[in-house]
Amino acid sequence: MLGLLQHACGIDPKANLAATLESARAAARDGAQIICTQELFGTQYFCQSENHGNYGLAEPIHPNPGPTTQAFQTLAREEKVVVIASIFEQRAPGLFHNTAAIIDADGALLGIYRKMHIPDDPLYYEKFYFTPGDVGDVNNSGFRAWETAFGKIGVLICWDQWYPEAARLTALAGAEIILIPTAIGWHPAEKAAEGAVQCDAWQTIQRSHAIANGCFVAAVNRIGHETPAGGEGIEFWGQSFVAAPSGEVIAQAAADQPETLLVQADLTQVHEARTHWPFLRDRRIDAYGGLTERFLD
Amino acid sequence: MLGLLQHACGIDPKANLAATLESARAAARDGAQIICTQELFGTQYFCQSENHGNYGLAEPIHPNPGPTTQAFQTLAREEKVVVIASIFEQRAPGLFHNTAAIIDADGALLGIYRKMHIPDDPLYYEKFYFTPGDVGDVNNSGFRAWETAFGKIGVLICWDQWYPEAARLTALAGAEIILIPTAIGWHPAEKAAEGAVQCDAWQTIQRSHAIANGCFVAAVNRIGHETPAGGEGIEFWGQSFVAAPSGEVIAQAAADQPETLLVQADLTQVHEARTHWPFLRDRRIDAYGGLTERFLD
Repeated sequence: MLGLLQHACGIDPKANLAATLESARAAARDGAQIICTQELFGTQYFCQSENHGNYGLAEPIHPNPGPTTQAFQTLAREEKVVVIASIFEQRAPGLFHNTAAIIDADGALLGIYRKMHIPDDPLYYEKFYFTPGDVGDVNNSGFRAWETAFGKIGVLICWDQWYPEAARLTALAGAEIILIPTAIGWHPAEKAAEGAVQCDAWQTIQRSHAIANGCFVAAVNRIGHETPAGGEGIEFWGQSFVAAPSGEVIAQAAADQPETLLVQADLTQVHEARTHWPFLRDRRIDAYGGLTERFLD
Repeated sequence: MLGLLQHACGIDPKANLAATLESARAAARDGAQIICTQELFGTQYFCQSENHGNYGLAEPIHPNPGPTTQAFQTLAREEKVVVIASIFEQRAPGLFHNTAAIIDADGALLGIYRKMHIPDDPLYYEKFYFTPGDVGDVNNSGFRAWETAFGKIGVLICWDQWYPEAARLTALAGAEIILIPTAIGWHPAEKAAEGAVQCDAWQTIQRSHAIANGCFVAAVNRIGHETPAGGEGIEFWGQSFVAAPSGEVIAQAAADQPETLLVQADLTQVHEARTHWPFLRDRRIDAYGGLTERFLD
């Protein structure tokens, strides 16, 4: 059973961590086996401005786990659950990533996933903060899948969710569940005119990954209206959800309420979907070379 | 303006061609500039069985256009419209493709697209009939885009629609509209239990191509319950539609009625979508090499 932790973030990182640990423990006790946080749950979404002070929010993960990773390793071991925890990582002085720690049910740090696609948009100034994940480096970056105690999983982070290439590579690596911590919301000035279409596009592209790859996709988003840089800020749209390999949304949280989504993911559906819609059988790998080009002009 | 021709197919190929030409001409007179047929509109969906006699339904397209291509070339020239016509192609004795002829508004055969991904499923025995399209051969196969009188377009055919790779490559080749002739329907025995989910997955994956690539996607499906091989046959689900670059469905036909869908496709939306959701900017082409592998095991 998946446990997706959707909530609002306050100003105090310690309180955010404590609340997330508490939700994770409650989810475990309610039967969750694979627990996933929202993106950068430890803080408000600081990327709304380019502020050098925010680098101080980062902590190490690999090879020497920092306090947040350690806290979830302890929880994972005690509760016998898999945890995907999204953390602002300092890899070295001046080198930062938007990273997820993948922790197995015995508390071992199975690996990390460093966000590969980094956005840069008004109020989402991530290219200022995060170096994109490396390809196939020794720290287990790049698109990957991990055999956990409760299934083979892959992780993508937020902006990655718009790239079919990312989902495909994660599925080809063996993932049967793709978990996607995210932080996405409405610009308050756009919400009335474009909010519904934006939200629907966000869910549609992720459902399409489930369909194309015959796997589960679980997106975990935050809620709350945050204005850490002043101005109108961002109203995070919540609506964390799980899509089955058929593309069906089998669970969805509210747009404005904290919620732990507990969702049964029957992995036999992966075999069922992939044999009845046998897309992996017919990929034209001889014809896909152009995908490593920027544009075919 | 796009004109998508959705209708049922009868037993007589001559009558199907005549009806499709008449619909195309009417669409042109109603303002359509780019007209697209459903997949293999000339016949009932003969792939419901493996029958050598059906090879006789094929005709040449390239380099010597057969009668169907010629008829649409005449229509295109007379009505000053672009036509995408889906035809069962005999390329050589014993060599057949599922092909679309791309005809410009002056009647010139701009190119052809030969279906790259070929399905094989109960009642969809296409691997018996169709050789998959070549990669980059002299006949303009492979994933392509063509500059027509009314915009740069790409074409995919049916099973291709499930492959994000196909849509991406077509967009990278420059397509701002991807047209997808298709023939998909319900097995009557599955319709009640799974029909809605199947249909929704079909629309969702194609909408996702519009979103991921910031382009229009137009799918043209047939209607009608066909039993050319006896048995329960296939109930084609119609519902031809156009998705805008935002992913919004801006027009959709009925499931069981012949319909010519006339849809304004404002190509300035491509620039708008691709700059406000700048996915092409951030593709990790250094990390996509695995997409040309069958599986990453």
